[in-house]
Parts: sequence; C-alpha cells; structure tokens
Amino acid sequence: MTSLKLRKVAIDTYHENVAYLHRACPLYRSEGFQALAKIEITDGPERAPVIAVLNIVDDANIVAPDELGLSEQTFSQFGAAEGTAVFVNHATPPASLQAVRRKIAGDRLDADDFLHICEDIVNNRYSKIEIAAFLVGCAESGMERDEMLYLTRAMVETGETLSWGEQLVVDKHCIGGIPGNRTTMLIVPIVAAHGMLMPKTSSRAITSPAGTADTMEVLAEVNLTPERMREVVQQHRGFIAWGGTARLAPVDDILISVERPLAMDSRGQMIASILSKKIAAGSTHLLIDIPVGPSAKVHTQSEAMRLRKLFEYVGDRSGLTIEVMISDDRQPIGHGVGPALEARDVMQVLQNDPRAPLDLREKALQMAGRILEFDPDVRGGQGYHLARDLLDSGRALQKMEAIVDAQGRHDFPPPEAKLKHVVTADHDGVVAAINNLQIAHIARLAGAPMDKAAGIDLHCKLGDRVEAGDTLYTIHAEFQADFQFARDAAADNNGYTLEKAS
Amino acid sequence: MTSLKLRKVAIDTYHENVAYLHRACPLYRSEGFQALAKIEITDGPERAPVIAVLNIVDDANIVAPDELGLSEQTFSQFGAAEGTAVFVNHATPPASLQAVRRKIAGDRLDADDFLHICEDIVNNRYSKIEIAAFLVGCAESGMERDEMLYLTRAMVETGETLSWGEQLVVDKHCIGGIPGNRTTMLIVPIVAAHGMLMPKTSSRAITSPAGTADTMEVLAEVNLTPERMREVVQQHRGFIAWGGTARLAPVDDILISVERPLAMDSRGQMIASILSKKIAAGSTHLLIDIPVGPSAKVHTQSEAMRLRKLFEYVGDRSGLTIEVMISDDRQPIGHGVGPALEARDVMQVLQNDPRAPLDLREKALQMAGRILEFDPDVRGGQGYHLARDLLDSGRALQKMEAIVDAQGRHDFPPPEAKLKHVVTADHDGVVAAINNLQIAHIARLAGAPMDKAAGIDLHCKLGDRVEAGDTLYTIHAEFQADFQFARDAAADNNGYTLEKAS
Repeated sequence: MTSLKLRKVAIDTYHENVAYLHRACPLYRSEGFQALAKIEITDGPERAPVIAVLNIVDDANIVAPDELGLSEQTFSQFGAAEGTAVFVNHATPPASLQAVRRKIAGDRLDADDFLHICEDIVNNRYSKIEIAAFLVGCAESGMERDEMLYLTRAMVETGETLSWGEQLVVDKHCIGGIPGNRTTMLIVPIVAAHGMLMPKTSSRAITSPAGTADTMEVLAEVNLTPERMREVVQQHRGFIAWGGTARLAPVDDILISVERPLAMDSRGQMIASILSKKIAAGSTHLLIDIPVGPSAKVHTQSEAMRLRKLFEYVGDRSGLTIEVMISDDRQPIGHGVGPALEARDVMQVLQNDPRAPLDLREKALQMAGRILEFDPDVRGGQGYHLARDLLDSGRALQKMEAIVDAQGRHDFPPPEAKLKHVVTADHDGVVAAINNLQIAHIARLAGAPMDKAAGIDLHCKLGDRVEAGDTLYTIHAEFQADFQFARDAAADNNGYTLEKAS
Repeated sequence: MTSLKLRKVAIDTYHENVAYLHRACPLYRSEGFQALAKIEITDGPERAPVIAVLNIVDDANIVAPDELGLSEQTFSQFGAAEGTAVFVNHATPPASLQAVRRKIAGDRLDADDFLHICEDIVNNRYSKIEIAAFLVGCAESGMERDEMLYLTRAMVETGETLSWGEQLVVDKHCIGGIPGNRTTMLIVPIVAAHGMLMPKTSSRAITSPAGTADTMEVLAEVNLTPERMREVVQQHRGFIAWGGTARLAPVDDILISVERPLAMDSRGQMIASILSKKIAAGSTHLLIDIPVGPSAKVHTQSEAMRLRKLFEYVGDRSGLTIEVMISDDRQPIGHGVGPALEARDVMQVLQNDPRAPLDLREKALQMAGRILEFDPDVRGGQGYHLARDLLDSGRALQKMEAIVDAQGRHDFPPPEAKLKHVVTADHDGVVAAINNLQIAHIARLAGAPMDKAAGIDLHCKLGDRVEAGDTLYTIHAEFQADFQFARDAAADNNGYTLEKAS
C-alpha cells in the first residue's frame, strides 16, 4: 500500500474533517476516490484513524502529489507530525448512520442509537451532510419524548461534566432572544446574595446584538479557567462567565453549527440542546423562561405549554428540577440594546437608580423569586419579596461588585460611542408595537456586539405617547460605515408602529 | 465598505462553493462572519453575485489578510480576474429554502417551488447541508407523484436539452447494477441495425466494477463532443458515448453527489433523476429494466410494480413513452466482470461465438425486442424474433463495427491482465447462490474499472455442478497490491454458496 506524507493545511474547516489530495496523486487515480467522498487516514495500528471528507487540490503549494493534507482541526485530532507516512482508504460509513436512516424512515430510536450517533459526531466521523440528515430526520417525523430524553443523555455522556458538590445548584435559561433581556446579570447577584449557588456560564451573541457574556464583559473578565470559576464560586456563591472553554455537551455545538444555516425548528433538538448543557454544567434546579409572541421562537400559549411538559418530562428523568415561566415578548426589555448600554441598565437597577428601567427590574425580580423558592427554607410565594429585599437593600449590588472584583474588574462605564443618531417619530401617536427583530437588526448593523459601545438606546416603550419629532431611540456606533448601515436600515424601517392617540 | 483582492484557491470543492478568508482579515472580525457561514461576493452591479460557504485560513500563502479566496469552481462561476476588488456580505438565504422547510414540515410543494429549488441548486446557491435537508425532506415524508413530476420537469428545465429532430428516439435504463449486465452494448447495434435512432449516453462506474462507458471505451473512444455525436448518429443511427460532457439535468448530478454518501433511498428522487436525464437527452421512448431480488435496489415484485406505475405516470405527462420490464438479479450476467472482460463477452455475443454467454445474449434480445416494438411497423410480439434475426445474421455485429470505427477504434482485444488467481470450490456441490455485491467488491479491489483488464471471469453460474478444486472464477489484476487485496477478500468470502447435490 502506497503511503503519503502528512501535511497540515492551515484551513479551519470547523467541525468538519477535511483532507486534501493533489489531483496528480497516484492514489487518487487508482483508488477511484471522488471529491466529497469520505476517506480514512491511518499511520499504523497504534493511532486511531480519522475520517475526513476529500477535497481535490491543483496547487502543489497547498499539497504536493505525494502528500496528504489535513485541515487544522483534523490534523490536531489525528495527532501525528508533519511528514509522517500515512495510508488512505475508503472510509466505512459510521455504523450509527444506519440508525439515522431508520429515523428518516420514521422509526423510533433507542438510547443506544442516540449514544452511538453522538459518539460518532463528537469524534468527527459525520460529515455535515450526515449531520443535516440526522437533524432533518429528527425534525420531520418528530421525536418521541423518550427520544428527547435519550438524545439529552447521549449529549451529556459524550462530553465533560462539572460537579459543584452541593445539593442545590441553580441556573436559568431563556428561550430565544429578546433585545435587552439581561436578567441573568441581576438574578445571579440576588440569588448568590441569598447564599444559593449559581455558577453561571453564558454564551456570546451569535445572531443577537449581545449575549450575557458580551454584556458581563463590559464590567469584568469573563474568560475564566475552570479552576478560577471554582475559586470565585466558593468565595461568592456565583459568577457570570463565558461557557465556551468547557467541553460541555460538545455534540450540541456541532449540531447547532449545522442547524443554524438551515434555520430549522426542531423542538426535540432544542430541548436536548438546552437541558444537556445544564446537566453537564452540574445544575440541579433550572428556571426556564419561555417568551411567547410574534417575534419569539414560541408563538402561542398552547405551544409553550406543550414545551413545558416536555422540559418537565426530560428534566424529571435526568435529575434536574425544572420550573417554567411563560412571559411576553412584545418589546425589548430595558432601554439599552448592545453590551455597554445593557450593562448600564443592569447597574442602574442594582444601584436603585431612579433612571433604571422598571421592566428589567420587574422581570429579574420575578425570575429571581422563582429561583429562590427552590430553597426548601423559602416559603412558597415569598421568593419575590425576598428578591426585592435583596435588591432594594443594596445586598445584590454589593454581591455584584464582589463578583466583578473576583472575576477581574474592567473600567466602567466605558467610553461612550463616538457616533450617535437620533431616530424620531414622524407623526403624533401612541407606541403600539416595537419590532424586536428590526431593533436587534439595527443594533447589530451599528456594530454590536463586536463594538461594545454600539447599539440602540430606547427612549420610548409600548404605550408611550409621542409627538412628531420626539426621539424614539438613539443609534450608537463606533465606525462610520456601520453607522451609515444602521441609519439606512432605520430610515427604511425604524421598527416602531405609532397609532393615532384616541 | 472595505474591498478584498480576489484570489483563486486551487481546491476543487466539487459542487459546493467555498470562499477562504484569512483569520486576520479585518472584515472577518468586524462582520462577525463565522466558519461555515454563507457569504455573498460581488464586485459591482454588473456581475451576478456568488454565494459561498466560508472557510477560515491561517496561512497567508493560501490567502492573505487582504484577499478573498474562491475555490476553483466558485472562481470560474464568479468570472472575475484575480486581483479584482470584491465586496463580501452576509448572504441572504435563497428564498426557495422556505419551500424546503415546508417540505420538511410535511407540506406538498408545487411546480414553482421545485423550479425555484432547482434553479438555486444549479446556481450553487445551496450548501451541501441545505441540499441534504431537501433530500431528506423529500425522502422522509415522501413525495406525491405530482411532486415527482414537478421535480422531473424542474430538473430538465434547469439544464440543457438535446433534440434529434425525429419522432422516435429510443433509450433504455436499468435500475441498479448487476455485475456484467452490458446489454446496452448489444441493444444499441441491434436496434440501430433496424434503423431506429438510439443515441446512447452512458455513465462511468461510480461504485460498480464497470459502467457502460468504461466497457465501450475498451473498444472505442467514448468522449465525443456533441457535434461528433450528431455526426455518428446521423450516419449510423446510434452511438455509445460517455454522457458526462453535456449539461443534461445538472441538478441531478449535484443531488446525487450529496445523496450518495447518505446511502439514502428516495424513490421520488430516483424517478426524477432517471427520467429527467432521458427527457433532457431527447428520448421519446424508454425501456426501463427493474431487476428484483436480494442484492438489487428493488426487493419485491410489488415494490417493482409500484415503481412501474410511478414511471408511467411521470413519463405520460412528460411526453416520454415508457415500457417497464421486471427481471431477476440472482447472479451476475455473462462471464466477465470488469471493462475488458465484459467487452469480450459482448463481442462474443455479436460474433455468434459458441463461447458467448447465453444469459447476456438472451437478456439483450428480450430488451432489444421490447424496444423494437416501439416501432409502429413492428407487430406486437415480433420484436424478439426481429432482434434475434438482426443478431444471428451478423447485421448487429456489422453495425457495431461501424459505430466503433465512427467513434474511433481502440485496439481489441487489449493485453490480458498480468496477474491471475483461480478461486476454486472447496467442496463438491451445486452453485446455489452468487452474491452480486461480493463479486462486484472483489472485482473493484482487483482494479476495475480503472485498470481496464482487471476484474473477475466467472466459470460457473447458478445450477452448475462443481467438484472440490474446480474453478469458480479467476481474478484478473494489473498491480500486485490490488491483486493481494482481491485475493484476500475472496479467501474471506468468495461470494459463492455451494449446496450438496441431491
């Protein structure tokens, strides 16, 4: 069998393993390999083979005819040095693909099927095409609730898990992004001030103007090592860090990378995605917020109720106590949309500043209240009042300051955005609707979340009476190009519906 | 808006458009692009933008931070010169993806939906992930027969079509490969000798030991330009050429490239695939052979019957007259498996050589007979006799020689394979089963179809009585490594089942 010399090709193909072979490579000809075919690469019996999708190259500067190139992640997964003699074969399709085909044909899969699928995915044995087939198969004929449970468990088992050594480890999750919905940054200090353990790993924005990690980063360092997380939580009962460093339910990240471009709606996969991350992160009690409305992921109350039952079913069988609250999504929460503007809102609420947005305060108190009631010592119905006391007394602020110091304080407030543009009402009226998606879109165009100070500052909310020329909101941007894009988008559709006052 | 310098990256990503951006490219950071995200590339209002999947590069030798790289096919589709200033944006998902999502959700799609999907696919606006979603969506909830019709038409409309200017243009198609099934190379000369028009474009082997184009290539040139095809068919009423040069139903090739790794069984897509190619190739009358059996694509008689009705439904509404015959797939046809060995069988049948395999002759006569009956002047039931006369009289051979000369004669017979290994019966018995898949597998390992002379020469067929030590078949190979692989595979499982003679 002819060998090839291993070479690293400095292309990041994300979670898809890609191998590069020169068109003049004798193996390419003789083995009848095809572009996009999957091949198996070995260098002997000691090392686990990797499977990769084949791309054909016509430039010897990328790979020469006697070389086999591997993309960055494939190269590091394989783990051999450049120049190693490697052998290439047609790859046998992963056995678990048989289960995917059964799923597509309408079968129910069992726990072992899901485990084998997740093992193969996490070891990069699935191509994107195969992952898409799995997702569509699960989306279309739908998943039984037991299948959601199996998938959740399989996703936990194929990654790392954290353990905090306590009986009560709380977390929260909101389904679908409402601009400005930064309740986490209020809930963590309130709940931790009560003494509950809330080690909060958050995400960065993917399609929204700010994730909790982006906003917290305005105040403090969020890239914490697992050791540092442990130290902070031991001392302060809570932290708000970026969750990307731990390999919690890594299959979820891979599935999402394929699902996102499809913009597909798979309920079962969403439930497994959310719960596997929380279980892997060591949570024991979880509050889930399901906003319902036209721009939310969930459009009707009955759909939200069905989701609640599914969360409860999977949670109960996975040792995770779940509370679900259903909220409304008719407008952004707070005034700011974008990391720095949202961080300002959060600090105003903690500081009991009269300018603080009441809706953000109120939603955070309600959620914190529900979480506090996970504590057996808190009487049912008393959580809200307890949360309010913790906030009004300044104990929540004190806790936040301590957490910020422990994580590593950043200068706050940061410099304001250089460019500002006021968007005004073009006629008198009452604010009848605010389009969350359009507001988020304009805020992203303005530079959020990359430029921390960029975003939108809302001056009016639903029900407010305005006169022609009154400010609806201000666009904040750092760079001229972004600024212009955002202004153009707002000129085209400012996201506000004004109705004639009656 | 910042521009980048266009650069060609000599990587063949097949039908997926891929763009390469350096990780240090300022646009990558500021626009929040993600690996695997889809981006749109323009250089101004004159040129149609292309959409490509983004790969991130860490090697300035592939693309520099101020460059945008495009894979070979993407670069040529875009059509601008290297160094052109180009602009990059987030791509709007193709509108037809909405229809794909509806299909996944279980909806029926209409003719326009299929047309828009095919248009977007043929213009490389779909990623592999999105194509997979479409295929799985069509496979799972299944397709109504009208949807198969719409997809067939859409696949024809989004490619080129041939027209031969005659009322009767015949073709044949066999579903699923039986090793040695080279009837096409007998049917074309028989039918053309009768004067019927049979311009036959064939495929090369993908997963089998030989395609018709591979086998014909042993005798003659098969890479004909469309002009050459016209000349040959005008003079001789038929040819057997490789069909890869014409852009007939190109969407089909793209769908197959994604479907193949999934090894998925989508009836609707199969019907659209076969019929769109034939309609685009200008056929008016088509004979379809459906082998039924354990190693065939179709396993039962009733499944074959359902398929027949679907072919007839779509054919009738597309101006294509369809005849279906159902055959059996219990063993390879003829003696040879592999291009040169199969070409030998074909020529023996045409030459009425006493060594000619009777089963190949018989199947070809039956099929040719059915096709001849498309001629209004041939009385029903007389086709078989007519075909036999054309063969026995040597007129079919004469026609084949003329076609071979017209396409460009190759030396025949070619040199025999250098390496031969005889596989023998290990006990007395009667041949009770021959595993087509294992025979095909061994023939491919031996080097077929890349090495024309490689393959398997069968000495016994079903029902033959053998004694221990008798030859079952001979493996032919050109290269020692292939030879050893094939011998090992045959030692492990020779594909024959011998039962005790009673």
